[in-house]
Amino acid sequence: MSSVVDTPVIATARRAREAAAELAPLPRAVRDRALLAIADALEARADEIVTANAADVERARAAGTAAGIIDRLTLTPQRVAAIASDVREVVALPDPVGEVVRGSTLPNGLELRQVRVPLGVVGIIYEARPNVTVDAAALCLKSGNAVLLRGSSSAYSSNTAIVRVLRDAVVSAGVPADAVQLVPGESRESVRELMTARGLVDVLIPRGGASLIRTVVNESTVPVIETGVGNCHVYVDESADLETAVRILVNSKAQRPSVCNAAETVLVHAAVAERFLPLALGALAEAGVTVHGDAAWCKAGEQAGVAVTEATDEDWAAEYLSLDIAAAVVDDLDAAVAHIRQWTSGHTEAVVARDTGAVRRFVARMDSAAVMVNASTRFTDGGQFGFGAEIGISTQKLHARGPMGLPELTSTTYVVTGDGHTRE
Amino acid sequence: MSSVVDTPVIATARRAREAAAELAPLPRAVRDRALLAIADALEARADEIVTANAADVERARAAGTAAGIIDRLTLTPQRVAAIASDVREVVALPDPVGEVVRGSTLPNGLELRQVRVPLGVVGIIYEARPNVTVDAAALCLKSGNAVLLRGSSSAYSSNTAIVRVLRDAVVSAGVPADAVQLVPGESRESVRELMTARGLVDVLIPRGGASLIRTVVNESTVPVIETGVGNCHVYVDESADLETAVRILVNSKAQRPSVCNAAETVLVHAAVAERFLPLALGALAEAGVTVHGDAAWCKAGEQAGVAVTEATDEDWAAEYLSLDIAAAVVDDLDAAVAHIRQWTSGHTEAVVARDTGAVRRFVARMDSAAVMVNASTRFTDGGQFGFGAEIGISTQKLHARGPMGLPELTSTTYVVTGDGHTRE
Repeated sequence: MSSVVDTPVIATARRAREAAAELAPLPRAVRDRALLAIADALEARADEIVTANAADVERARAAGTAAGIIDRLTLTPQRVAAIASDVREVVALPDPVGEVVRGSTLPNGLELRQVRVPLGVVGIIYEARPNVTVDAAALCLKSGNAVLLRGSSSAYSSNTAIVRVLRDAVVSAGVPADAVQLVPGESRESVRELMTARGLVDVLIPRGGASLIRTVVNESTVPVIETGVGNCHVYVDESADLETAVRILVNSKAQRPSVCNAAETVLVHAAVAERFLPLALGALAEAGVTVHGDAAWCKAGEQAGVAVTEATDEDWAAEYLSLDIAAAVVDDLDAAVAHIRQWTSGHTEAVVARDTGAVRRFVARMDSAAVMVNASTRFTDGGQFGFGAEIGISTQKLHARGPMGLPELTSTTYVVTGDGHTRE
Repeated sequence: MSSVVDTPVIATARRAREAAAELAPLPRAVRDRALLAIADALEARADEIVTANAADVERARAAGTAAGIIDRLTLTPQRVAAIASDVREVVALPDPVGEVVRGSTLPNGLELRQVRVPLGVVGIIYEARPNVTVDAAALCLKSGNAVLLRGSSSAYSSNTAIVRVLRDAVVSAGVPADAVQLVPGESRESVRELMTARGLVDVLIPRGGASLIRTVVNESTVPVIETGVGNCHVYVDESADLETAVRILVNSKAQRPSVCNAAETVLVHAAVAERFLPLALGALAEAGVTVHGDAAWCKAGEQAGVAVTEATDEDWAAEYLSLDIAAAVVDDLDAAVAHIRQWTSGHTEAVVARDTGAVRRFVARMDSAAVMVNASTRFTDGGQFGFGAEIGISTQKLHARGPMGLPELTSTTYVVTGDGHTRE
């Protein structure tokens, strides 16, 4: 119990902690009612939100912000309606809270139940995407958690308006307003305070680019779930059906290159390189992809009349998020494994192979959140996996790995029931 | 890829990482064979271990170390045999690696499997208990992990001898020696290096006193699993059977006071205080327990002729680990909940009550790893829960909470199998 006066951020976290204690025992019906109230309020007060957003957009334009970022920042009545519709989908998802994960009756008659419970206070640190404000709040509420939202300062006006709407809505449903709070302040210092509020904040989830995530991981004393950085690989085995391999490669790279589950490197078994490289170069060029290749790929590019840039270690490490791909020929499957283990960010790797032994060997030697066998890397996604919604894709090994749905926003507690049991 | 020469600790961690890559795909049979080889070797080379241990014990005696600590440090041929026997029990436990945690076939025909995989490299930081060296290594090997052992410098000679035996044994079974390594050096600096070896070490588990755990949690950039600090509470409701409550209280406090699941505070509903306090004071005095009480307990002590020390905030916060207990009377169940939420370390709380509504209300409002209903706090234990063995009791909310068995030493990976699936 410190006698020092709380900073605004710490005071906010303390209120979140109190709200979390009230929120945790509330049944699903109350939490769902709050979510429906949020969806209704977003639609009813879309004008208020769009007006506040316009101020952020104007500031961003004046500051010469890139068009893509401005697009992600911009809200329209239609976009607000789409966000409200997403909230209604969260309502329909199964309640993770109270799920009995395992249970048994012990030899002495004690009844053991491991039950899912909310984490408590979840902090989300994210970039200039006001839709994340609503998505994150909805998923946290659904899983019984209080949420502290720390968006980009460039969306502060939008987020302030949205959070005002969210708080009014949850209160109308009997949920404490402080279950949803914006972290006050637009300075870096407010992020630092959030990252060191250990004991008040149960987990921080950074959503955004690699540098944001690195900062939070390095500086936070609050436990962090790392999300999203994807240096994903496609390995084409000697046993691959080469046309299938081309389709999977092009889909993995080019179907949506700006996202974390897009492929960034292709590795090809030497035994099929001569046949595969020309096919791949043609298909990648047609999809507008620039290849950063090793000597074999450069040579194949020359022969095919396709420009191939010479790859360096930076290319093996790169998460391009663009129509670029690093490409190498490897001696065998084990060399592909070694390359991937050296350079991967641990997100998703794909193997294209017909030989079951090769598939088993590859899968057993990966150390990533997801391994795709004869499928595109683009499938690593909470929606695709049938989780309904995701708060991010974890690339760490503790607690959650891969697409994080509602269960990953919970902890568990053991409830042990006896009738006066004591230990001998 | 740094060009700086590795320190001995970092070089050790890098070898562990390589060993982990070799270890992960090995089937259960090989890992079990290594564990049996360890058990046999411990017995065969017990003299070598006991001799090395004698040097540590002698040094500890010369330094005036407390008798209890020397006892925990001391190995005899019998104790070594008992440790070997524990290893054989680990062999018999179910293999967590490869367990399919969930699985389904997606609408597009993709087969989704979430499969348990080893974490990789597990670091254990612990105090002067050489048995932990073997226990931790056995549990890590069983779960497919490489282990970095950093015991107390006061057990360095014992640990060096033990690890030599373990490494010889695993090699004889076809497991890389570097799957089991002692962190070199006896200085604090070597611990600091281990705590910052992010990317090489996947998780650190500190086992020991509160100050060791706090240091690791605060200074580590490697993910940490907090274990063991237990400020556990027993709440006696107005609906409790008071004789049952006395038995549970005395068992929770006095059956083994030095461990983390022993009770440290008792809270009594005001409506039964007048009847319960004299019973409890008598039974606690008989068990040799000193009560640190609030005004009501002090007064009851006077009336009963039992000395009760006046409690301060330090008592509410204390993990005594001794025959002491803090004691208060509370106005009602909600006041008990508020007290516990303010002071608990999040380990185990017990409620003694006959009223089902009171039990439901209490259980739903706790925020701890375990809640005992009409049972002693002493049951929070991997062995008691039927997990066979535990690496510690987690008091944090992410990844593992409560007794940690073999599954808690694993992560998961999604294996997704298609036949050329691409995303539209």
